[in-house]
Amino acid sequence: MRVAVLGATGLVGREMIKVLEERGFPVGELLPLASSRSAGQKVPFRGRDIVVEAVDESSFHGVDCALFSAGSDTSRTWAPRAASSGAVVIDNSSAWRMAPDVPLVVPEVNPKDLDFHRGIIANPNCATIQAVVALKPLHDAAWLESMSVVTFQSVSGTGRRGIEALSEGSKAVLKGEKPEAGPYTRPIAFDVLPEIGSIDKEGVSEEERKMINESRKIFHLPDLAVSCTTVRVPVFRGHAESIVAAFGKDVSPESARHVLREAPGVRCVDECLDGNYATCREAAGKDPVFVGRIRRDTGREKALSMWVVADNLRKGAALNAVQIAETLFLR
Amino acid sequence: MRVAVLGATGLVGREMIKVLEERGFPVGELLPLASSRSAGQKVPFRGRDIVVEAVDESSFHGVDCALFSAGSDTSRTWAPRAASSGAVVIDNSSAWRMAPDVPLVVPEVNPKDLDFHRGIIANPNCATIQAVVALKPLHDAAWLESMSVVTFQSVSGTGRRGIEALSEGSKAVLKGEKPEAGPYTRPIAFDVLPEIGSIDKEGVSEEERKMINESRKIFHLPDLAVSCTTVRVPVFRGHAESIVAAFGKDVSPESARHVLREAPGVRCVDECLDGNYATCREAAGKDPVFVGRIRRDTGREKALSMWVVADNLRKGAALNAVQIAETLFLR
Repeated sequence: MRVAVLGATGLVGREMIKVLEERGFPVGELLPLASSRSAGQKVPFRGRDIVVEAVDESSFHGVDCALFSAGSDTSRTWAPRAASSGAVVIDNSSAWRMAPDVPLVVPEVNPKDLDFHRGIIANPNCATIQAVVALKPLHDAAWLESMSVVTFQSVSGTGRRGIEALSEGSKAVLKGEKPEAGPYTRPIAFDVLPEIGSIDKEGVSEEERKMINESRKIFHLPDLAVSCTTVRVPVFRGHAESIVAAFGKDVSPESARHVLREAPGVRCVDECLDGNYATCREAAGKDPVFVGRIRRDTGREKALSMWVVADNLRKGAALNAVQIAETLFLR
Repeated sequence: MRVAVLGATGLVGREMIKVLEERGFPVGELLPLASSRSAGQKVPFRGRDIVVEAVDESSFHGVDCALFSAGSDTSRTWAPRAASSGAVVIDNSSAWRMAPDVPLVVPEVNPKDLDFHRGIIANPNCATIQAVVALKPLHDAAWLESMSVVTFQSVSGTGRRGIEALSEGSKAVLKGEKPEAGPYTRPIAFDVLPEIGSIDKEGVSEEERKMINESRKIFHLPDLAVSCTTVRVPVFRGHAESIVAAFGKDVSPESARHVLREAPGVRCVDECLDGNYATCREAAGKDPVFVGRIRRDTGREKALSMWVVADNLRKGAALNAVQIAETLFLR
């Protein structure tokens, strides 16, 4: 298969290429693409360095599958062209996620939605993916009525500029100097910022809207009650989420653990009372969505609290995109 | 007045002495006390360095007010003795908070509870104080039915060992070395830990139990629905909280802002749409509880979401204790 990766030099693009290799995806030819600014850089694949080409009108001829992680504007321009060239586009930007004729897919949750694609498939937002992977098996068992999510999101979600802002900002603070804000509205070093994307006139941030809208679309529950606060934290890689989920019927922590132990894509780490969770550091570079601290919520009937952690660059982005490709082409 | 400070060399003890000076509390004689291990150290007060004495049976003779911040065990030993010597003890540990005959007081919220004290008054937990200061005026306006709190708590809540673990651990990570856990179960540098205090057999942590039990006691709402996840974050000073509060009657964000602008101890920072919140860095060293990102909760009727930040060493500990003393002795 001819596989193109647009945005091949970004954090997620590189991770996509790494995941394609690791999982033995049947890539006959890899075509790393980027803007003309990044063209000429090299990316490693199967022991070789492959030169990144500038995307243009001819890039997608003969391409079977195109993984996009190059931002919404680029995606709006190139996804329809790639699709009309016959490629299936799996797009990691937010450009197409809420389009009614574009499936928004997490393979463990709603793989059947792939059946109606028209050449473009959207990869959900990182924070949404790990929440729905954890909640789907519980929804199947007990019917999800509401989800309340507070996120702890690492700077790698912002790309290299986020990593640099945290790294340089932390060094500055430790030397007694003033940190810079970099891509954020305030310095992220040794602080937490409850603002991811701009805040709308109802006071809800873009990232929070994504959680609300994408969860409803993925679960096919247009009226699902979703409460959400998304927060950037001074962590390099891995997102954590405190989730309270209320269900139509009572589900004990024991039965939730039992369900989650069997669930695809989930690692239930709630086997003991102390230290019964994963952290961002522990999840970084790993594939599963780690679910821990499963307990009855103290404030609500028929509800569970849990602590859900995943690698935002892998399951939250690159891995999920490749899993969509696997589901489409290898099933 | 003779004022003793037990635990005078700790982070909170030093802050108590600083706050006594700053606010012009009528201290005739300051008596800094500590364990024999810390005795002999000096603490600054009104331009002088005062030698810390080891606490013993005679320490509290003639003392009017004793501010304690020396841990629960020390408090269990010395608070009853200080009280029977005639001192009023204001204790920052968790030893006495839930004792039925001990008032648990936030002066802006339940000052009248001071009327029934028997020599010991408990200062609530840092995370609880800022939540109840923000919610009290809204409770008065619309009747609080439930509160759901997820905390982002800085390492200064753990004392100097927490600050050192974050500082040294961060330096290690930035040099490519492995950070140490210090007082935590895992390294806090560039990670978030959803574990403050030990986790009980229902899966709830000590810190979460404090939020639940103390909020109910302070509000005199023994059945208040409280959901809580408490998380340690790599921040030096200042705690942030994502709070969803549901009320008996509908309260618009506009009317909430109006109420909060007039509320004692609160700084409503929600005047504009972007950047409408305070961060831990901004709250550090300041007195108010900063409330921002006030919005209708997207998942629940008659509920508001908000972002509440305060300095855990000041309003969360030392300042609240001194305000209790002011309320008792100066009203």
